[in-house]
Amino acid sequence: LTIQIDEQKIIVKIKNLSPKRVLFSAPDGLLLKAYEIANKIKKKYYIETFVSVDPCYGACDTLSYEIEKLDVDLVVHIGHNRSKNRIFKKTLFIEAFDDISFYEILNDALSLIKKYKKIGLCTISQHLHELIPSKDFLENHDIKVLIGRGNGLLEDGQILGCEFYSVYNIRDKVDAFVILGQSNFHAIGLELATGKSTFQLDPYMKKIISVSQHTEKSFKKAFLSIIKARDAERFGIIIGLKEGQMNVKKALNIKKKLEDCGKEVGIIVMREIFDDRLALLKKNIDVFIQTACPRISIDGCTFSSLVLSIPQIEALFKLWKGENIENFLRKTSWH
Amino acid sequence: LTIQIDEQKIIVKIKNLSPKRVLFSAPDGLLLKAYEIANKIKKKYYIETFVSVDPCYGACDTLSYEIEKLDVDLVVHIGHNRSKNRIFKKTLFIEAFDDISFYEILNDALSLIKKYKKIGLCTISQHLHELIPSKDFLENHDIKVLIGRGNGLLEDGQILGCEFYSVYNIRDKVDAFVILGQSNFHAIGLELATGKSTFQLDPYMKKIISVSQHTEKSFKKAFLSIIKARDAERFGIIIGLKEGQMNVKKALNIKKKLEDCGKEVGIIVMREIFDDRLALLKKNIDVFIQTACPRISIDGCTFSSLVLSIPQIEALFKLWKGENIENFLRKTSWH
Repeated sequence: LTIQIDEQKIIVKIKNLSPKRVLFSAPDGLLLKAYEIANKIKKKYYIETFVSVDPCYGACDTLSYEIEKLDVDLVVHIGHNRSKNRIFKKTLFIEAFDDISFYEILNDALSLIKKYKKIGLCTISQHLHELIPSKDFLENHDIKVLIGRGNGLLEDGQILGCEFYSVYNIRDKVDAFVILGQSNFHAIGLELATGKSTFQLDPYMKKIISVSQHTEKSFKKAFLSIIKARDAERFGIIIGLKEGQMNVKKALNIKKKLEDCGKEVGIIVMREIFDDRLALLKKNIDVFIQTACPRISIDGCTFSSLVLSIPQIEALFKLWKGENIENFLRKTSWH
Repeated sequence: LTIQIDEQKIIVKIKNLSPKRVLFSAPDGLLLKAYEIANKIKKKYYIETFVSVDPCYGACDTLSYEIEKLDVDLVVHIGHNRSKNRIFKKTLFIEAFDDISFYEILNDALSLIKKYKKIGLCTISQHLHELIPSKDFLENHDIKVLIGRGNGLLEDGQILGCEFYSVYNIRDKVDAFVILGQSNFHAIGLELATGKSTFQLDPYMKKIISVSQHTEKSFKKAFLSIIKARDAERFGIIIGLKEGQMNVKKALNIKKKLEDCGKEVGIIVMREIFDDRLALLKKNIDVFIQTACPRISIDGCTFSSLVLSIPQIEALFKLWKGENIENFLRKTSWH
């Protein structure tokens, strides 16, 4: 593993704060590492450490309920960077950096990239420190590179699975995008949101990947779901219970708009949106609309019910008014 | 369906309280019904209604987090009766009664039951109103019947999946138990906790069921897990995050005792105890101890890791001291 976690930063915080109970949280790939760090710290500083094993998909999975109920003094959230415009009580964000180099794969990709006049460059959180060196490398090889400004959750040149601000806003100024990292998921999102050819540089497998086939498949699936929902009468709107995913206002807005269209609407709430849970209400709900995480129903899970996310229900409203919906995913954010 | 839900009680409460937002909760079998009631009430009284679709296993699944985060004025909890010794803020418990009659199946069971001098009679929440009529029926046929007193969560003659107070305390005064209802799960628990022959009267299938084979299987599985854990070195204690299942003190106690035995111990927290989540830590944990719901690891889910519940870890401590553990499940409660 090449993942670097700044344990020293955790230790400094613990020495300063002298907490009695510390809760650790991490995405699945870093969970074992978080467990090891928690146990090490427990022994060394004689404090109680807990590790959260619930799924943690991003900075949206914060733990205010756990903080209160477990009476912890500090949460150490490993592997996601902090959102700039939200306040996280008692939470220390420890970024996980990946020290793998991109020079080799950038070098391999030069002839391909050179076909484009100007490229947009972006990445995901663990490779953020590679962004400027990669830009410099490409510019030294006479390639014009643009990195979009960040906003809110995002650093410059960073994207999330559902937030594309830094790439959407430069899409008309570049001829293609290059994304650094192994995440197919983010590359597909990028291409769907911008509509520009996207090349993913995977430094582990040393592969240059065009995701257009996957993008097309995801688009068709998401688009078809909207068409299928056109004649539905009974809608169930899902509010996600995870703190960073809960959007009651949005759910109530959609409900109002659907009722104005004469539809029957119920609101349901749930923490994890699992197909077997939705199946329990299938008899009374034709279409579920989930307001929690757009990726779940755009190209994430496969559901046996029809499940739309926010960009899809917004497209459905347009469709009902006879408007064109082809560009329904071209947005800075899918929330 | 023969399930009776007192909708009038909900309506009276809503008229008195004039809530703006109401959250409904129910076990899976009643979820669709809860959704229908919520939608009916929404239309009639112009209030926002939400339905919780997360798994709700019992009165232990209460919704204080949801109450706060969704800003609801009232929770209508359908299908479980209220715990007498706990305070539930803003929560209306609506019992679900099943109006199926037991006379036919009791009549069929007479010759079997007459073999025993005295029987203990019990049931689960939805058939509580059948308990006294069933006792009268049996006594009219010259059968001696004892119904144990309730306590805390339990009414007289009621059992839960993890609480056996009303039967455990009369086990020496009766020769066998009769449980009214379709729940194999409760009948097995009853036999495991009391060690008395148990007959389950299923009024739907009109069957008299001896659960002893299942009981033996469950016992062997639970017992074997303890034996398997005997030489383990690395323990992970799970704290359940559901309000009624969270037991931090117990977890910390077990941790202390394990550390005193020289074991390596970590504490993890999670909402639903799923095997795939535990698998993420398998490399570093030999035995999981879950303090959330005893049934999960006694005879509930099948796990690919070794998972013990509280009675099992207590038995393991005894085993390490060379004590006999055969009766480790003979208790009023498995918490």
